[in-house]
Amino acid sequence: MPEQSSPLDLAEGDPFGPHNLPYGVFSTPGHPEDRRIGVRVGKHVLDAGAAAHALGSPYARLLAQPSLTPLLAAGRTAWRDVRRALTAWVTVPSHRPDLEPLLYPLDEVTLHLPYEVADYVDFYASEHHATNVGRIFRPDGAALTPNWKHLPIGYHGRAGTVVVSGTDVVRPAGQRKAPSDPVPVFGPSVKLDIEAEVGFVVGVPSEQGSPVALGDFREHVFGLSLLNDWSARDIQAWEYVPLGPFLGKSFATSVSAWVTPLEALDAARTAPPARDAELLPYLEDADDEEPGGFDIRISVEINGQAVSEPPFASMYWTAAQQLAQMTVNGASLRTGDLYGSGTVSGAEPGQRGSLLELTWNGRDPLDLPEGKRTFLEDGDTVTLTAWAPGPHGTRVGLGEVTGRIVPAP
Amino acid sequence: MPEQSSPLDLAEGDPFGPHNLPYGVFSTPGHPEDRRIGVRVGKHVLDAGAAAHALGSPYARLLAQPSLTPLLAAGRTAWRDVRRALTAWVTVPSHRPDLEPLLYPLDEVTLHLPYEVADYVDFYASEHHATNVGRIFRPDGAALTPNWKHLPIGYHGRAGTVVVSGTDVVRPAGQRKAPSDPVPVFGPSVKLDIEAEVGFVVGVPSEQGSPVALGDFREHVFGLSLLNDWSARDIQAWEYVPLGPFLGKSFATSVSAWVTPLEALDAARTAPPARDAELLPYLEDADDEEPGGFDIRISVEINGQAVSEPPFASMYWTAAQQLAQMTVNGASLRTGDLYGSGTVSGAEPGQRGSLLELTWNGRDPLDLPEGKRTFLEDGDTVTLTAWAPGPHGTRVGLGEVTGRIVPAP
Repeated sequence: MPEQSSPLDLAEGDPFGPHNLPYGVFSTPGHPEDRRIGVRVGKHVLDAGAAAHALGSPYARLLAQPSLTPLLAAGRTAWRDVRRALTAWVTVPSHRPDLEPLLYPLDEVTLHLPYEVADYVDFYASEHHATNVGRIFRPDGAALTPNWKHLPIGYHGRAGTVVVSGTDVVRPAGQRKAPSDPVPVFGPSVKLDIEAEVGFVVGVPSEQGSPVALGDFREHVFGLSLLNDWSARDIQAWEYVPLGPFLGKSFATSVSAWVTPLEALDAARTAPPARDAELLPYLEDADDEEPGGFDIRISVEINGQAVSEPPFASMYWTAAQQLAQMTVNGASLRTGDLYGSGTVSGAEPGQRGSLLELTWNGRDPLDLPEGKRTFLEDGDTVTLTAWAPGPHGTRVGLGEVTGRIVPAP
Repeated sequence: MPEQSSPLDLAEGDPFGPHNLPYGVFSTPGHPEDRRIGVRVGKHVLDAGAAAHALGSPYARLLAQPSLTPLLAAGRTAWRDVRRALTAWVTVPSHRPDLEPLLYPLDEVTLHLPYEVADYVDFYASEHHATNVGRIFRPDGAALTPNWKHLPIGYHGRAGTVVVSGTDVVRPAGQRKAPSDPVPVFGPSVKLDIEAEVGFVVGVPSEQGSPVALGDFREHVFGLSLLNDWSARDIQAWEYVPLGPFLGKSFATSVSAWVTPLEALDAARTAPPARDAELLPYLEDADDEEPGGFDIRISVEINGQAVSEPPFASMYWTAAQQLAQMTVNGASLRTGDLYGSGTVSGAEPGQRGSLLELTWNGRDPLDLPEGKRTFLEDGDTVTLTAWAPGPHGTRVGLGEVTGRIVPAP
């Protein structure tokens, strides 16, 4: 009889190896209420609280929780120490007998939204995306608004409709009015779209009235995950002047079940594009030791067919600049605040992060095996995956975010 | 020696008499962590949980809480039953010996934010306000955008910076750029403003994907309170195109410490203004039995000087229409969701709910005893108060919302 292999024997180059170790919350079949913090190792989930207990870790209490929220709030020293401990646990052979019973195959567990979302903010930080959108919607005006290169533009979204990857998305209904319509009509959205983004998760709160400096990004932000900001373009187009997107976005936002800690992405840090306008001091990062960008390569699939590869490294505004912007007026941070980068679109047509751009608002449909696609149809499944360079030539996988469109009620 | 009067002996016509009974959360001196649900009776606060316990009420557990959240979630039958019980307790003389020890003078307790705000949405529902703003900012265009009479326009604000009445407001800093400035400048806002509003508090949640019908307003909304949506007009003007207000609003929103239950305002229901455009069925309320408006008379004071009397009855869109709009795309409600009516402005100059309108963007300063005012100065205190018609010729007082401006750091 061949020796049974251990879930901890990962293939070389596994993007979810010990250099990654993202956090999530899972439950096992038949026990949906018994939520536990899990750490992904290859194609398994380690019950982190039980592991900490078995190994006598001082972090057993922090990890034996139904949510990541206490860990998020614990701060950078705890984040680093917990990560070091986890790395040791999954790599030192003597721990195997303790850990192996605490590993569950990924496809046998249920993954939950891993923390309670406090406030959700969405930015608009890709110059390519903002330029494309400007050209599509304001063909006679300047593609970028005059403020775009001076501050990261953002707005608040609906925290209560952030859902975990795998949750079905009900097609939203609402008002729309084409320029040729005399009055608005009501019905299910006919321009249901995606926005491929990266979401940043705030751990450590800040005081109201006290801005967070650019250099304090790592003191407050725990990690990131892929995010799909589902968008109903027809609803949005009719409602958004003058107060911005509302129902066109608020029906659902999907996030990955896995939060990748910032430390796992140290090798992926990269300088953002050169700036075209002088920045005010609170946004100026030219002299920072740590480059503000992340070299994350995203893939967008519709029904299993790759349709785009948005490069996060091309984002004009960095996550640290967005954090500084969001708080410069004294707005406070709370544990669980989530902010999206904005749609990630690169310079090339095959790098666009929305169907609005990929099909140029429906003018140039995509050819999928099941037919032409302008916007999403009922039954379509959209999946975002991504990886980033890790240490020593490895890859760090980001947890996927997937969702299927179901018909409006 | 004269007999000592009871706090329950209220003056006739007291706007916080037994026909009102708003809910809040308080603590007593020296015990800031021991938060309890309080019900306002005249100038006293009744410890509602202790009262329920003393009187053997089945609602003792629901009321012996540090927050209103469980009561909000309990639903309309519980809301009605608790209110009936409270009304009996404070009016039936035989309960006095039990209740009097549980009454605290208002000026001896600390009032807290009474529930955790889930999502915060702000609407734009006064035709007079939207028209004034349009005339000020777009003098050459139509005052109202084409969508305005077809749907209640709204946007998400920052839930984490909603503060209770009495909290100081730190003047926000940020970017601004006058048309004559070649580049944006950074500094404390020089156009700090108020917005006098009414905020509605959601109790019963709804399912994602399931719109809430206009007629189900009372099944979901527990009550209302005054709300001041502090606004930095200069920051807002530079940032808000194309995604709407963000930092110009997110630094602070003040709400009253008291939530008035909808049932206390039955006598204040009134029909909204006549509609100028045919409404889509999900917003059509012409045949509803209960009129959608509320006859609430607001007063705005700056440093004790009355400057405006905005009439809530003049609001074009009703709170029920706003709830239907907010969920028509399938967005779910959570307990603690808060939505603001939008600035309340009447037809007359003395009824405008913002300094932007009252001073016509600074052109016509107000004359206050301490000098001319265009926008708020450091040290200014703004207080909103309001009342509505109650049963049998009484008045129902709404809890005040007040805040003082402190300098930017």
